[in-house]
Amino acid sequence: MTGSLSIALDAMGGDRAPEMVVKGANIARQRFPNVRFEFFGDERRVKPLLDRHAALRKVSNVVHTDKVVAGDDKPSVALRAGRGSSMRLAIDAVHSGVAAGVVSAGNTGALMAMSKFVLKTLPGIDRPAIASFFPTLRGESVMLDLGANLSCDADNLVQFAVMGRVFARTVLGILKPTVGLLNVGSEEVKGHEAVREAFAILRASSLPGEFHGFVEGDDIARGTVDVIVTDGFTGNVALKTLEGTAKLYAEFLKRSFKSSLIARFGYLLARPALNALRVRTDPRRYNGAIFLGLNGVAVKSHGGTDALGFANAIGVAVDMVTQKSLDKIREDFARYIAANVAIEPAVAL
Amino acid sequence: MTGSLSIALDAMGGDRAPEMVVKGANIARQRFPNVRFEFFGDERRVKPLLDRHAALRKVSNVVHTDKVVAGDDKPSVALRAGRGSSMRLAIDAVHSGVAAGVVSAGNTGALMAMSKFVLKTLPGIDRPAIASFFPTLRGESVMLDLGANLSCDADNLVQFAVMGRVFARTVLGILKPTVGLLNVGSEEVKGHEAVREAFAILRASSLPGEFHGFVEGDDIARGTVDVIVTDGFTGNVALKTLEGTAKLYAEFLKRSFKSSLIARFGYLLARPALNALRVRTDPRRYNGAIFLGLNGVAVKSHGGTDALGFANAIGVAVDMVTQKSLDKIREDFARYIAANVAIEPAVAL
Repeated sequence: MTGSLSIALDAMGGDRAPEMVVKGANIARQRFPNVRFEFFGDERRVKPLLDRHAALRKVSNVVHTDKVVAGDDKPSVALRAGRGSSMRLAIDAVHSGVAAGVVSAGNTGALMAMSKFVLKTLPGIDRPAIASFFPTLRGESVMLDLGANLSCDADNLVQFAVMGRVFARTVLGILKPTVGLLNVGSEEVKGHEAVREAFAILRASSLPGEFHGFVEGDDIARGTVDVIVTDGFTGNVALKTLEGTAKLYAEFLKRSFKSSLIARFGYLLARPALNALRVRTDPRRYNGAIFLGLNGVAVKSHGGTDALGFANAIGVAVDMVTQKSLDKIREDFARYIAANVAIEPAVAL
Repeated sequence: MTGSLSIALDAMGGDRAPEMVVKGANIARQRFPNVRFEFFGDERRVKPLLDRHAALRKVSNVVHTDKVVAGDDKPSVALRAGRGSSMRLAIDAVHSGVAAGVVSAGNTGALMAMSKFVLKTLPGIDRPAIASFFPTLRGESVMLDLGANLSCDADNLVQFAVMGRVFARTVLGILKPTVGLLNVGSEEVKGHEAVREAFAILRASSLPGEFHGFVEGDDIARGTVDVIVTDGFTGNVALKTLEGTAKLYAEFLKRSFKSSLIARFGYLLARPALNALRVRTDPRRYNGAIFLGLNGVAVKSHGGTDALGFANAIGVAVDMVTQKSLDKIREDFARYIAANVAIEPAVAL
């Protein structure tokens, strides 16, 4: 990679914006010295924050707007009335080429609707999907869709598989990602029509060994496959169930260690090892839901995250850009459509 | 409660049957001194096992059959060819009144198909559902459907809500269970048509405070509601995701404790407290998926469980019978249909 690239930041999105956004950008600046930042938001609030970080200020530009998309604005309202908002201007910057990608911790539905409207979808993609990655027993896996499309037909699922596979290659660095379709059983006859049809298409079109077949809910955390493909309703429920269960377990554990003096002492001794576990499963580490299938890089940060989490979301956008993820999705689709039966492997990373 | 009740056991169902079934019955016998057991299966294998447990043998009867439903038999095949099998005879025993309920660790699809065929559904119930309960931050919750009906309309979901509420009252002992519909967001406008319509029906018909509204995936482990209602596809994925994540966390924890000598020592000190956690989250404790909506008590044990897990599945069947769960579902439905708008609370327990 040569030269610098610019990331557009919605400075006003998120519970603790704009402080969290500026601090997050400052962490990202240290990780990615060749990245510049375009802040969109209230300059009366953003500029004083930048003044505290001289090195960040040098690689940043602030575009002022008073307008902000509210957290509870409906996507349709945001589309109509959101012109000139910090979120919309940040997306526009990607469309105009000023920025290579956009990161926002604001309203998810509004960000998806505006990104789709402004950036459009890639050729061959009917509907963009929301993807996210998380820790598993074997490493990291990505799942999509997580809520952009509540019901999906077989073609949508096949498109998600192609996009998810590219994400796993480019951002997670997995050379030959395996793909699984989420279902209620692993046998070919199980599940509703859309998953069975998608199964047949992927089985016929994919390279041997890359399409694993059906996977079940317990395969998600197990890391049976690198890419889990499902409709937005099931994916949203599954990811939140996974996050909720991890929290439950952490809470149970905390209570156990507090239940006696000896257990407390045991905790003190085991703390360094347990801290490593905490770091490994820290949700901030996996912050950044990616809108895949758009003709532009758009990343949604959790609204409640802190600077470290926001920096990681910026990292996902930077990885998407530097690894040329969109070009690879385009290539894979062009090949897929040309052959109609075979998804060829992309050129080696 | 007076007198004795009889539970029919499929002695040949499950990975470690019939040993596991007989041992499980022996544990259940100690917990429920007034329960008798009808074993259906190969008497040449079951009788010698019973001979090892004199007290159990006294309250047991063995009905011989050589026929067994295989683990991979399709439900339709089991229905046609499964007459006279250990599973089918056990279900028949409930239909004829010889037994008050049936427990099997065999093929789930076959058990559901045969139970539906033999026992039929309760008045007002279009489709039976599979329900199961699990530990949460607040106690225990039940979720349904877990796979019997992959797609559900609003009426199905409303029926599941009524049945799940009765289960929470009678088996989990929760006086006023709260009910939530699983969705991708908590606002009324979210989700697909079936959940939004079910929301409207439950909102109009339920007592204030009992119908919580929509819940999300992370509410499952949090215990936000006592009863989680969803279609069989989503429910199956969510429950398996929850189980898989709990296993992942336990494995991560084990690795942490093994990562250094000091961490190992810390583990030794904290072990009693951690064992309490292990007991609390032991899957055997929550073994026993209930087929709700049938005109008879049918409980499916995990195929891979051990004697303790199987005894717990028997416990669920016994609770269902002694708490008159089916009568309560009948009553709630009769009331619901009569009023058409109001699900009255059942009589106090």
